[in-house]
Amino acid sequence: MSMSSYEYLDKINSPSDLKKLSVGELEILCGEIRDMLISTVSQNGGHLSPNLGTVELTVAMHYVYDTPNDKFIWDVGHQSYTHKLLTGRRDKLSTIRKKGGISGFPKRNESEYDAFNVGHSSTSISAAYGIARARAIKGEKGRTVAIIGDGALTGGLAYEGLNNAGRFDKNFTVILNDNKMSISRNVGSIAQYLTHIRIRPGYIKTKKIVEKILLHTPVIGNPIRKLLLNSKSKLRVSVYRNTIFEDLGFVYYGPVDGHDLNKLIHALNATKNVKEPVLLHVVTKKGKGYQYAEQDPKSFHGVPSFDIESGEPYSNSKGFSAHFGDVLCDIAKNDERICAITAAMKLGTGLNAFSRNYKERFFDVGIAEEHAVTFAAGIATEGMIPVFAVYSSFLQRAYDQIVHDAAAQSLHIVLAVDRAGIVGEDGETHQGVFDVAMLNSIPNVTIFSPCYFDELSEVMNKAIYECDNVVAVRYPRGGEPYKPSGMQNHDSYSILGDGKDALIVTYGRTYAYAAQALEILKSKNNNVTVLKLNRIRPIPNEAVDFAVDFKKVYFFEEGMETGGIGELFCYELQKRGFSGSYDLTAIKNKFVCQSTVNEALEELNLDCCGIVNKLTWN
Amino acid sequence: MSMSSYEYLDKINSPSDLKKLSVGELEILCGEIRDMLISTVSQNGGHLSPNLGTVELTVAMHYVYDTPNDKFIWDVGHQSYTHKLLTGRRDKLSTIRKKGGISGFPKRNESEYDAFNVGHSSTSISAAYGIARARAIKGEKGRTVAIIGDGALTGGLAYEGLNNAGRFDKNFTVILNDNKMSISRNVGSIAQYLTHIRIRPGYIKTKKIVEKILLHTPVIGNPIRKLLLNSKSKLRVSVYRNTIFEDLGFVYYGPVDGHDLNKLIHALNATKNVKEPVLLHVVTKKGKGYQYAEQDPKSFHGVPSFDIESGEPYSNSKGFSAHFGDVLCDIAKNDERICAITAAMKLGTGLNAFSRNYKERFFDVGIAEEHAVTFAAGIATEGMIPVFAVYSSFLQRAYDQIVHDAAAQSLHIVLAVDRAGIVGEDGETHQGVFDVAMLNSIPNVTIFSPCYFDELSEVMNKAIYECDNVVAVRYPRGGEPYKPSGMQNHDSYSILGDGKDALIVTYGRTYAYAAQALEILKSKNNNVTVLKLNRIRPIPNEAVDFAVDFKKVYFFEEGMETGGIGELFCYELQKRGFSGSYDLTAIKNKFVCQSTVNEALEELNLDCCGIVNKLTWN
Repeated sequence: MSMSSYEYLDKINSPSDLKKLSVGELEILCGEIRDMLISTVSQNGGHLSPNLGTVELTVAMHYVYDTPNDKFIWDVGHQSYTHKLLTGRRDKLSTIRKKGGISGFPKRNESEYDAFNVGHSSTSISAAYGIARARAIKGEKGRTVAIIGDGALTGGLAYEGLNNAGRFDKNFTVILNDNKMSISRNVGSIAQYLTHIRIRPGYIKTKKIVEKILLHTPVIGNPIRKLLLNSKSKLRVSVYRNTIFEDLGFVYYGPVDGHDLNKLIHALNATKNVKEPVLLHVVTKKGKGYQYAEQDPKSFHGVPSFDIESGEPYSNSKGFSAHFGDVLCDIAKNDERICAITAAMKLGTGLNAFSRNYKERFFDVGIAEEHAVTFAAGIATEGMIPVFAVYSSFLQRAYDQIVHDAAAQSLHIVLAVDRAGIVGEDGETHQGVFDVAMLNSIPNVTIFSPCYFDELSEVMNKAIYECDNVVAVRYPRGGEPYKPSGMQNHDSYSILGDGKDALIVTYGRTYAYAAQALEILKSKNNNVTVLKLNRIRPIPNEAVDFAVDFKKVYFFEEGMETGGIGELFCYELQKRGFSGSYDLTAIKNKFVCQSTVNEALEELNLDCCGIVNKLTWN
Repeated sequence: MSMSSYEYLDKINSPSDLKKLSVGELEILCGEIRDMLISTVSQNGGHLSPNLGTVELTVAMHYVYDTPNDKFIWDVGHQSYTHKLLTGRRDKLSTIRKKGGISGFPKRNESEYDAFNVGHSSTSISAAYGIARARAIKGEKGRTVAIIGDGALTGGLAYEGLNNAGRFDKNFTVILNDNKMSISRNVGSIAQYLTHIRIRPGYIKTKKIVEKILLHTPVIGNPIRKLLLNSKSKLRVSVYRNTIFEDLGFVYYGPVDGHDLNKLIHALNATKNVKEPVLLHVVTKKGKGYQYAEQDPKSFHGVPSFDIESGEPYSNSKGFSAHFGDVLCDIAKNDERICAITAAMKLGTGLNAFSRNYKERFFDVGIAEEHAVTFAAGIATEGMIPVFAVYSSFLQRAYDQIVHDAAAQSLHIVLAVDRAGIVGEDGETHQGVFDVAMLNSIPNVTIFSPCYFDELSEVMNKAIYECDNVVAVRYPRGGEPYKPSGMQNHDSYSILGDGKDALIVTYGRTYAYAAQALEILKSKNNNVTVLKLNRIRPIPNEAVDFAVDFKKVYFFEEGMETGGIGELFCYELQKRGFSGSYDLTAIKNKFVCQSTVNEALEELNLDCCGIVNKLTWN
């Protein structure tokens, strides 16, 4: 496998080049695309299985449709690599997910072929419908096509979109990319339902036969015939409205083999001029064409760089997610009230062992963060203790449920907020930089932000046994950072050093950088102290009291400035008559773009170097 | 109609008393309940139509089920008045929605019969499912019943709940209270679908006949028989799985006449021991039994106090919602890019005229705030200007969509945030006190908070023509407050008075109280100045510069303290070397309970008296 030269792919500079090829040539092209995808992702990391599963679908779509006049809206967008390859970004694929490179998701400012920015799940139908309605008002032609996976269909927003778009009569198609693997077997009725309609390839054919018999054959037994033709009978209706999608107003077409170019092209052509909204059901295999990904598509859903021959990732150190999973198993072993909830992120959040060991108390709810929190609230009313493990940026989905269903009735639920802080290569949609500001204003919420594994263990126990309301425990992506010796631990905060010149206040991972900075500053004769908040809300009073006598206080926060802890700390100091100078380094009013975590922290002045520079005044 | 004495109702102190009555007596009881509901709501205001529609259903439920061993979870909860009457709160009904009185919504701390707190829509299935799962783990008996309206079924959270609960095999029922009127005719496919299954009362019967014919009648024409019995045929399946709800794993039962006690009791008894999850479809008439509410159920959905004989509200002054509607119509008349979106709140948000005048550009999306924002984002990518009018507390539903779908791709959408600030009698679930803190941390969001109608007009024009990103315009429930003369208007802020002793900083409605306080303080020889922020984010630099030289700055904020503007203002002053004292009055880490708006503002020290007291230091 190499990035070198491809017979067909090298000539595709825009979708129009694609249209010159025969179906046989397109098939070869698909092989070349797969080769390039595997090679690139093995080096850059990224979403492998979703992209390998949609190669033929994407090629067929660009072959049949006329983008950018027709518009594609990719749900989540992690399957858009082939789309990028075919729309003039082949030469940039090696930069994907790197700082300054192309994004691993569609981006409107990257290409006119990218119609809508994505990253979170289940948005495509609503966004595409907005685009389609606006174009209809403007009198513009062109079909709008949303491409959504079966996993994303478990999200309520997708249903809201279907419910609204189902009665629109102009140029609107939803392609259901049913890859069967994106959701756990036990996730939801819609998954079972898709299995149900998926296994009947004769669906369209059956429907035609029934129609023919009903309308044209006179030789039917009388009671049946009467029943079938009686307009009040459900049976008649069921012949015409056979699927949920038809019930919601769509013309259903499928299922179509998503790796058969001829069938795909036929299906796309057959549906591209239908006036009613179309739901085209395509069945694909996640990870298709790379043996390790086919065998274990979930592990290859999103991956760091890996060895192509063995399928093994280059690094595999234990991260916070795994440690969290261990801690929760330990607690659950002795406490039958503990339940664990994930929104389709069992592996990512470290809950694999929990799901095996405590099956009855483990709930994978699908990509349904809202439901996860309200469901947890229901569990909590019965005296059980639900722990919802979720990535920080996806928790944003459940803001109102935290406010309205949990906090407002003082229910004890634990939010295990994974990927808190800078997440890196997935870019602005995945950074965990809003959760603190989001949770901060909600009454009676407690927030812990541990920096080390042992602290995570400790605060998980506090969250479960010493709190009685909504508690968030937030921890970063990746493993343990540098740990200095000499920390003095107090209740809910720690002190390092005894310099009188200035005080650094911070929390979470940033502490490790502050500890490194302390040493460097000492060598420059700047003697500072570092205060680390373990509980960031409520801010421990003693921590503010400790800070108030310093002449200079520097707060470093790996999160949004406005509404964050640094601003609050300033106000708390002000209330105590603080007369020194206060300097806050946090993320100021912007989204943080893709790069490595370290590159982002450097740019934000939230690494060791940034801290040293801020505090070097002589 | 009177509150005096009722033959049957007066004897019902708990649901067990209900079980002693005959169905004929229950029917009389229902009339008494209606009488009491109309009388009480006409005096206290409240939700009338939803409660009148569910009298028989609630009576039948308490007659058949054994609460609190069985648990009822009311969606939204605005239809729970009859439930309250039957569960020991009859004597307190006159206090409903008043300060210190019983709530207009279920509250766990009010009664053991209230299993889950509600207020926002579409939470009941998720919460009930959580309760049912927890009880199953604990080995407890009793059925959990969620009661949800067809309107609430347009919300994605309800679908997420159905999708998860549909495969649970223990004691779980969803009662669909299909009142046909809660959603506009044009809202969504699910509404059309319900109409479709509603008009076939013979459904159950038909199904039985088909089953019988299929399984027992040998005399069927061969091709049909083969088709029907072939396990791969959709037709066979469709006989057994006829509705969306059955596709999602529920046993469907209905439709049942929701005002026929005999049929309701029969249906509830028939389904209460079914092992599979049940969806019981009940058809009710919103406003049933009060002519004005039957004729216009939407206007009587939630009402202030009114005259029973005429149906007319006692006061009917023009509020901010109506003024917003006028302003938007004026702008839309000359600008074809303007679109208006509501989430099932056309009347409440003042969009009635817009919906008539600009039908093609008006979108009622159902109770689907998430979709509303993502849909708006889609519209905005096409250069149209969507304005989403929404109550502050419901906007909480769309936090991630604002972050991820709108702000992160710098799309120009306008959020018209109605009911911002204290809302009053609906209590903690409806207060608009989180929106500022919620929006504050999102990059590039602009927030205006006008105090008067002319300011609302002005900032709506600014929001549409001078901004190019997410803009929120927030305004309170009710009408214009006191307006002083002598305001000096600057860009985005105003100054009143020229006292040197202290500066009051505030925004929105609170300004009117500050202006009154200014006069009173002057009479006490405390000479203060009032600074009113019109744009609260970004805070106008000149406003902070103006404040920095005062020795005392008092900030008053009708919203959450943490993450609000007052904290931010403190930090901005600190950055400029402010050395005076800073005092912030805002809502501190608590939910604000029901009362009138004035009572709440008084308690929060956010009215004239509260401001005067804070500033009276000599």
